[in-house]
Amino acid sequence: MSLIVQKYGGTSVGSVERIKQVAERVAKFKMLGHQVVVVLSAMSGETNRLIKLAHDVQSQPDARELDVLVSTGEQVTIALLAMALKDLGLKAKSYTGAQVRILTDSSYTKARILNIDEQHLRSDLQAGNVIVVAGFQGVDEHGNITTLGRGGSDTTGVALAAALKADECQIYTDVDGVYTTDPRIVPEARRLKTITFEEMLEMASLGSKVLQIRSVEFAGKYKVKLRVLSSFQEEGEGTLITFEEDDNMEQAIISGIAFNRDEAKITVLGVPDTPGVAYQILGPVADANIDVDMIIQNVGANNTTDFTFTVHRNDYVRTLQMLRDLQAKIGAREVTGDDKIAKVSIVGVGMRSHVGIASSMFKTLAEESINIQMISTSEIKISVVIDEKYLELAVRVLHKAFGLEKAA
Amino acid sequence: MSLIVQKYGGTSVGSVERIKQVAERVAKFKMLGHQVVVVLSAMSGETNRLIKLAHDVQSQPDARELDVLVSTGEQVTIALLAMALKDLGLKAKSYTGAQVRILTDSSYTKARILNIDEQHLRSDLQAGNVIVVAGFQGVDEHGNITTLGRGGSDTTGVALAAALKADECQIYTDVDGVYTTDPRIVPEARRLKTITFEEMLEMASLGSKVLQIRSVEFAGKYKVKLRVLSSFQEEGEGTLITFEEDDNMEQAIISGIAFNRDEAKITVLGVPDTPGVAYQILGPVADANIDVDMIIQNVGANNTTDFTFTVHRNDYVRTLQMLRDLQAKIGAREVTGDDKIAKVSIVGVGMRSHVGIASSMFKTLAEESINIQMISTSEIKISVVIDEKYLELAVRVLHKAFGLEKAA
Repeated sequence: MSLIVQKYGGTSVGSVERIKQVAERVAKFKMLGHQVVVVLSAMSGETNRLIKLAHDVQSQPDARELDVLVSTGEQVTIALLAMALKDLGLKAKSYTGAQVRILTDSSYTKARILNIDEQHLRSDLQAGNVIVVAGFQGVDEHGNITTLGRGGSDTTGVALAAALKADECQIYTDVDGVYTTDPRIVPEARRLKTITFEEMLEMASLGSKVLQIRSVEFAGKYKVKLRVLSSFQEEGEGTLITFEEDDNMEQAIISGIAFNRDEAKITVLGVPDTPGVAYQILGPVADANIDVDMIIQNVGANNTTDFTFTVHRNDYVRTLQMLRDLQAKIGAREVTGDDKIAKVSIVGVGMRSHVGIASSMFKTLAEESINIQMISTSEIKISVVIDEKYLELAVRVLHKAFGLEKAA
Repeated sequence: MSLIVQKYGGTSVGSVERIKQVAERVAKFKMLGHQVVVVLSAMSGETNRLIKLAHDVQSQPDARELDVLVSTGEQVTIALLAMALKDLGLKAKSYTGAQVRILTDSSYTKARILNIDEQHLRSDLQAGNVIVVAGFQGVDEHGNITTLGRGGSDTTGVALAAALKADECQIYTDVDGVYTTDPRIVPEARRLKTITFEEMLEMASLGSKVLQIRSVEFAGKYKVKLRVLSSFQEEGEGTLITFEEDDNMEQAIISGIAFNRDEAKITVLGVPDTPGVAYQILGPVADANIDVDMIIQNVGANNTTDFTFTVHRNDYVRTLQMLRDLQAKIGAREVTGDDKIAKVSIVGVGMRSHVGIASSMFKTLAEESINIQMISTSEIKISVVIDEKYLELAVRVLHKAFGLEKAA
């Protein structure tokens, strides 16, 4: 008998019919003798509906009250699923975040989990109940309702699995696993049977939206066995996210190709090459609460340096304006930018032990005359920024060049 | 400076626009220097929508889960009103039933309030906050969410007013007070400036649906000054529900005329007139969870007795069938019934000190050839059962006969 935590997203509980299907899936696991804890999101669309209501009332909705409001979304689905399970003759009990006591800090709309009191859940499980927990929400030490931010239901699932020392945390989504890249761009893209946590982190943060990155970090930290599965397919083993590299000889050098087109780049040219210049440029950006992703500094001519970084496209105009206002103060020759860029990354723990991966990547792009604007590397990934219009082409040729369409 | 509890029903918070109007009304009271606690229902229609969802999932929805589900309705409105108040520059804070800690018993869907922990509310009020509390809901000693049953938001308002020793509990509805009778039947019906608790109890239980009867009982028990007001009129003092009879010389003998057509009568004829016969008849009815309203027993011929009682019309067929099945056992000659009846009652504390009120009532009805089928009296009311088709006529002539159209 295993203890399994299953997390279902908004599409999986988007209607009464879907909720009944989830109940039937849960029932199968229960019949096999497993203990099951289910974590649910709100019905798809519901959170957005509530946020719109809030904005109709207050242009900048109060964060505390926004959490009171949106946390009702999951409270509806847990009650309905508990009913559906009882309708199948199972014992079931719903829990809000506050009822479990998923203790968080008081950072409304983006709270962090501090502790989970799992004692009640454990005794209810032992009494034969399926436990149905509202994802995405918690409660602070003063009893205020908090939410964990978008995608927080994944984090709830993983955190519960960690607290209960579950045998597996299954994340049910509308895809059946993690792919070598987006099948909409490369039809030959292949589902990975396993992927390491480190790779998954790179894939997630680079725009593979299967799992929320915080939940992956959480799973890695607490060694939770995480599996991504489709909630719409009866069979299928999904993708298992593993802690260690596969010793398999057949291990692919790279596991996947991630990409995103949410970024824009800002370049500050001809800055005096003196200590503190990076801080002079990025300090005000950070103060304006703008997230910076890639940062590259290059030596320029005449004791000056060129400085380039990327921000979210939504922050592009604001960042550009801010730096142009600062241009004289920091002594820059020019501030330019481009919001028609895309980032493409190859990810794989195998590249640690293989040389020449970077040059293979650059050669492949060069053969298609795709110009590389920025390069950034880590232990297990190489990212390049290119003109947005070449994105699909770049992903396709890289997928083929690294043989990702072939089973590992 | 006064402490005022204001309760707004579902129609008053039925849209974003309405919620903003409530916020403006609350702001006016706050500007006058009062402390304000607001109790809200769910947006009109929302509770029914949620109950329908539940029934779509489970034909007999689990009571615990139903409370988890429907309690989200008020959680949405309290968050939205708190936002609307903040948008007007006020300090505001929402509380669910569990967050206040409105402790109830564990009778899901019809829980009773046991205790209210008002300490947090008090300190938040002293800090200048408008407190916005979810009506209709509480929490049991194990932390399970409970609801108080239909109309429970009124009870929450009165219970909070009692716990906080508020100066007044204002119930905002879609009518501007309690009337001498239904103005749709008698256009001359007049709003009462005051009504006693006892009269209000009789009026409410007799079908004047302005206030939920439990909340009136609660207010009487804890001496909460209760006022019914319109949430759609800017001005107006509504109707104050008082603890004591008005010493005013002008006090009317009767205050109002209540009626309902929700009942049906069952008559058991020719039962042996022996001890225990009432129990033989009404025991099985009570066991079947059928509420009985009026009960009348009359001596018949030959040591037999005739026994008549009324039940809700929805229970009519079931009750009639049950007693016909029992007819032989209890030795009755015949069991008959009628579901085309109406009950009309005159209510007033003034009738205690006036003789002849009953005979005035009967004379008025006789003059219109309205036959009286049953009579039942209490200290402050006289009820008659008549043929349903005469209901409007009876109410009109009684309203005129007792001079209710004239200001007291």
